[in-house]
Amino acid sequence: MTATDFSPLFSPKSIALIGASQDLTRISGQPLKALRAAGYKGQIHLVNPKYPELHGQKCFPSAESIGLPVDMAIVAVPAPGVAAAIRDCGKAKIKFAVVLTAGFRETGVGGVAMEAELKRAAHEAGVRMIGPNCQGMVAVPSRVWACFGSISEEVDLTEGEVSCVFQSGGFGYAIVNLAELQGVGFRNCVSSGNETDLTAPELLEAFLDDPGTKMAFAVIEGTPDARRLLDVGAKSLANGKPVLIWKSANTEAGAKAAASHTANMTGRADLFRAAFRQSGLIEVDDVEPIVDIAKLVAQGRRAKGRRMGALSISGGSGIVFADRCVREGLTLPPFSETTVAALRKIIPAFGSSENPADVTAGIFNDMGLLTKTLEIVLQDPGIDQLAILLASIPGAPAAKAAEAIVAAAAKTDKPVHLAWSGRRSKSEAAYCILEAAKVPIIPTPVRLAQAAAVLARFEEDRVRLGGRKAPVASMSVTLKLPAGAATLSEAESKDVLAAYGIAVTREAFVPEGASLLAKVAKLSPPFAVKVVSRDIAHKSDVGGVKLGLGDVLGAEDAAREVVANARRAKPDAKIDGVLVAEMAAGLEVLIGVVNDPGFGPTVALGLGGVLTEVLRDVTYRIAPFGIEDARDMIGELKGARLFAGYRGQPAVDTEALAKMLVQVAAMAFQMKDRLAEMDINPVFVGPKGAVAADALVVLK
Amino acid sequence: MTATDFSPLFSPKSIALIGASQDLTRISGQPLKALRAAGYKGQIHLVNPKYPELHGQKCFPSAESIGLPVDMAIVAVPAPGVAAAIRDCGKAKIKFAVVLTAGFRETGVGGVAMEAELKRAAHEAGVRMIGPNCQGMVAVPSRVWACFGSISEEVDLTEGEVSCVFQSGGFGYAIVNLAELQGVGFRNCVSSGNETDLTAPELLEAFLDDPGTKMAFAVIEGTPDARRLLDVGAKSLANGKPVLIWKSANTEAGAKAAASHTANMTGRADLFRAAFRQSGLIEVDDVEPIVDIAKLVAQGRRAKGRRMGALSISGGSGIVFADRCVREGLTLPPFSETTVAALRKIIPAFGSSENPADVTAGIFNDMGLLTKTLEIVLQDPGIDQLAILLASIPGAPAAKAAEAIVAAAAKTDKPVHLAWSGRRSKSEAAYCILEAAKVPIIPTPVRLAQAAAVLARFEEDRVRLGGRKAPVASMSVTLKLPAGAATLSEAESKDVLAAYGIAVTREAFVPEGASLLAKVAKLSPPFAVKVVSRDIAHKSDVGGVKLGLGDVLGAEDAAREVVANARRAKPDAKIDGVLVAEMAAGLEVLIGVVNDPGFGPTVALGLGGVLTEVLRDVTYRIAPFGIEDARDMIGELKGARLFAGYRGQPAVDTEALAKMLVQVAAMAFQMKDRLAEMDINPVFVGPKGAVAADALVVLK
Repeated sequence: MTATDFSPLFSPKSIALIGASQDLTRISGQPLKALRAAGYKGQIHLVNPKYPELHGQKCFPSAESIGLPVDMAIVAVPAPGVAAAIRDCGKAKIKFAVVLTAGFRETGVGGVAMEAELKRAAHEAGVRMIGPNCQGMVAVPSRVWACFGSISEEVDLTEGEVSCVFQSGGFGYAIVNLAELQGVGFRNCVSSGNETDLTAPELLEAFLDDPGTKMAFAVIEGTPDARRLLDVGAKSLANGKPVLIWKSANTEAGAKAAASHTANMTGRADLFRAAFRQSGLIEVDDVEPIVDIAKLVAQGRRAKGRRMGALSISGGSGIVFADRCVREGLTLPPFSETTVAALRKIIPAFGSSENPADVTAGIFNDMGLLTKTLEIVLQDPGIDQLAILLASIPGAPAAKAAEAIVAAAAKTDKPVHLAWSGRRSKSEAAYCILEAAKVPIIPTPVRLAQAAAVLARFEEDRVRLGGRKAPVASMSVTLKLPAGAATLSEAESKDVLAAYGIAVTREAFVPEGASLLAKVAKLSPPFAVKVVSRDIAHKSDVGGVKLGLGDVLGAEDAAREVVANARRAKPDAKIDGVLVAEMAAGLEVLIGVVNDPGFGPTVALGLGGVLTEVLRDVTYRIAPFGIEDARDMIGELKGARLFAGYRGQPAVDTEALAKMLVQVAAMAFQMKDRLAEMDINPVFVGPKGAVAADALVVLK
Repeated sequence: MTATDFSPLFSPKSIALIGASQDLTRISGQPLKALRAAGYKGQIHLVNPKYPELHGQKCFPSAESIGLPVDMAIVAVPAPGVAAAIRDCGKAKIKFAVVLTAGFRETGVGGVAMEAELKRAAHEAGVRMIGPNCQGMVAVPSRVWACFGSISEEVDLTEGEVSCVFQSGGFGYAIVNLAELQGVGFRNCVSSGNETDLTAPELLEAFLDDPGTKMAFAVIEGTPDARRLLDVGAKSLANGKPVLIWKSANTEAGAKAAASHTANMTGRADLFRAAFRQSGLIEVDDVEPIVDIAKLVAQGRRAKGRRMGALSISGGSGIVFADRCVREGLTLPPFSETTVAALRKIIPAFGSSENPADVTAGIFNDMGLLTKTLEIVLQDPGIDQLAILLASIPGAPAAKAAEAIVAAAAKTDKPVHLAWSGRRSKSEAAYCILEAAKVPIIPTPVRLAQAAAVLARFEEDRVRLGGRKAPVASMSVTLKLPAGAATLSEAESKDVLAAYGIAVTREAFVPEGASLLAKVAKLSPPFAVKVVSRDIAHKSDVGGVKLGLGDVLGAEDAAREVVANARRAKPDAKIDGVLVAEMAAGLEVLIGVVNDPGFGPTVALGLGGVLTEVLRDVTYRIAPFGIEDARDMIGELKGARLFAGYRGQPAVDTEALAKMLVQVAAMAFQMKDRLAEMDINPVFVGPKGAVAADALVVLK
């Protein structure tokens, strides 16, 4: 796939407004008003067959009739005419269209059909489309306000390095607005609506390719293009540009509300979270984190590690800052002996020379104290970032502190940031000094700790995840699978696993009528005996399982019994025979596969027994993945310490489990067109090796 | 204890400034400047033996020499002179002193002694004291700015109904400042510093007694007066005034920072959290929640339940709002059929008439749509609060929407609030209309959901917790306990439990040399046999326990073996004999008691086995408490659903467990002067009854 060139969309030399209205207060009129107010310098062509002339300029009957090259179209004709308008754009060789019109799949059956036709039209006409049912886009540097609603009146947005995409225009532009008020500058903002063609993940990739964008965020309810988020994450890490995702509609109530909104597929929150973790995307859940992280990113400095140094003028802020740093995974290491010795000479006894240092309100009388302290602490090689906690110091002292901080920050490449809530009205000078030097100002120590932790984790993920490659799965496996949807029996399911090299219990399938004795000759007791039938997915529930049988005689009795039990419970079930397996032992875990409509095959790992059933201690990764991701999965289970041995049990072979996870992921990915879901439960992880003791494969 | 009258502190008719300085920029000068700038109307007396006259008024050599009634003193003399200054206040019959001076226990050993002397001086002189090592207090309505630092220059704080106390002055006043900037009005604010006399809990009680205070908050690192927080909670619920507590220093790093700050005892975060839950106090961990809750409280309306209605002009905000409501324990019930039918008639098809309703940006063209929708939804009897999500609509439409909302809110007593982030510069009219009508404006839907949930939970707690009374424990129990610190043996520990009526396993103590057969005649096998020795706290570790013995013979063998094992492992241990107990069965839980220096005896409940050891699934309550609290403890365990039966196990007798918790709490409270800690592990909870199978009592 050739990368799309998005410059005609974000920096168009000319724009056609299709369905232009006489009334500039209407949706079909607002974009013209906004483009003019924003000072868009390119050509604007109006298209509406009703008028030969409009707003003092020529009005064309169609895009095709413009007869000049046009980069981008804004489409605001009524829903039934949108597909035709897009085909018209195609004829005019317009590469991009922003469709503001609503009334498609979000309104029901008729809308679904109309949207399918629109999708076809865009594809056939070669037009890449934003929307429909969106509020439009804003490209601040090129002064393109191709939008309607509140944002069409906010043409003085500060230009900056943050680009964003959101499915809800009203809410998304409220976020832009609120973030901008708090000091964030914007580049390209897109309300993506129904995402019939261009999706949030594709737009995020476009932002990451854009040299002017240093950070991107998305607010999405869901996306059919979910799997592409992994590529977005990889590009984010490779390009060193953080991508923040606010995934909403994570509750039943939220998903219900989303259904009547953009009718986007909302998807499973736990899988999205897994994809974020797997690929280095950063999850957020309110506006403030977006603002704070954007401010830190704008400084353009990288945190080399998790070691935070802090300097306060008020002990209380140092305490809450330390608390939150630790909670967010940062450390506050002790300052070096040299640092502490130097600080002790200048910081008063009622302050603190340890990390977090408390220089006390003494700086009000002697700002040199701050200058010296900053110099000393910034030279400490054990510190990766420095937070300065200024409480709400106002006026002249704030300005002096700002000067000291800017001077110190200029001498280091470490991130240096402030928690400060001085009143702007009394501290304009300090704000100007700090803003000019791009020293980030966050209003509270808690928020600063959260944002600094994101900065540190992002750099860590660049190293940790950046180099990972999922193994290219192309095993040559010949399987005899039934055509169409089917639930395989345990024996068949295990044959599939075994074909992909996954260790299963040593066992023998004994078909109905065959001699058990002959089949189990090579197996050692104790045995498990289980009825085999595609029609019985939950064998235990029908008395179809007998465990711990000491010899072949016992196994024969058990075989008769489980078949009889199964017959009694499910008279219609077709019973193939029984499976006689050696009993396995070890820590019980379960491995599952769901073939998610958005993410494709996804592997789940959970601890067996009470931990999974009572606490839902399960973690996911999108398939395929390599051994490092598998190890991460094992490590992030809440009950992970069980693997190291518990109440005298030996430590178990987590590496064997990790390898099995990788194998399952490869298998699931290769079988993705046939696999609906799979359960391997339990897997026994012993001191040496891991083995699948039961399995259930569901084909689609 | 007679309630202290705090009016001389918060509304003093006259103030003495002891240690008044010539230099108004010094700590001992700033209060005078601030009091004058704030327009304090009472008399200010200056005290400093160095000057006969100061700042154009008479200066007294001592407080006593003023010769007129003085309500309150501000003390700013150097640390070594503070105790004498307080004694001088006593002679002058001054009831309250605010001691700004630092240099006490926070500086080390010498400071500790000086602070003890100061405490004695205050007590003997009958002076109630704030500080030392504090930044002072501000009483906005009475214009008392008895403080130094940034806050002494912020004399234009908006008056309101929020009072607060914080141990860190710099950080606390930064919170006040930031909250005020976001629209919160303040009443009395106290920087409490070392809390040598007046503590945060006592000041919170004073705020709750103050008719002008409608909400209070505290920012504390810890307090030796922790137990008093339960009284604060009770008063908060009784008076219907929410109390928010930000407890910091919850991590090792935070506690370390606190140690060098106010040297306050930081205490265990989990016990604080238990006390909050038990008494209806509201935990917060940043400034924004304080601001948002204060705004909702200022409206003066009560949420009758958890049922939230929402109305948005942008589907996206409805979705994130719904998500967060659910996460915070609110519900978004379906609107009534009448409501939905009425909404369907007016809301466009691409909007939503279900809860959360989406009236769409259509209101820009027809504000009547909002008016009608509000009227319909506010009449729905199934809704307790209404959130209106306005995104960032600006200017004239915002003003019209504000009018519609204020009109609708006036017709109901339900809380009606807004998530709105319109720019103030473009929407001044709307802000004024809403603020005049006290309709709360919160910047994001997420924050609104969080604050609304607190409002609902507080009202629920008033009903749920408000009527609870801990049983007055005064059992007449005669115990023969060893004098001084001692770890009791299992047999002795169980005797203590039994004396308090707590069910223990049926068992017999067999002293060394006695006949086991005779002692166990009334018991039924299977038996557990355990060595008994005060010197062996962990019997299993030394092979001192044998379980599941089928008969007396087996028990006799086991008895010899456990004693021999114990002798081998701990040759010096004094062995009293063995305990032969009937084996108990059921779900394993553990009950513990810690006698916390701040909270006193506190009871812990955890699930036994993997859940406690791996996941630390433990919950606490401060003793004594009644059956409802005990039931709450059981319900809030993460693994609580195990009690209802798991993998075919029967449901267990949680009521018996609850009763045992109440008994343990009563016992722990009654024994509080002797009990250091206690472990009852395991307790077996069966289908009928609960029984302590092992116990360890540690005396102090």
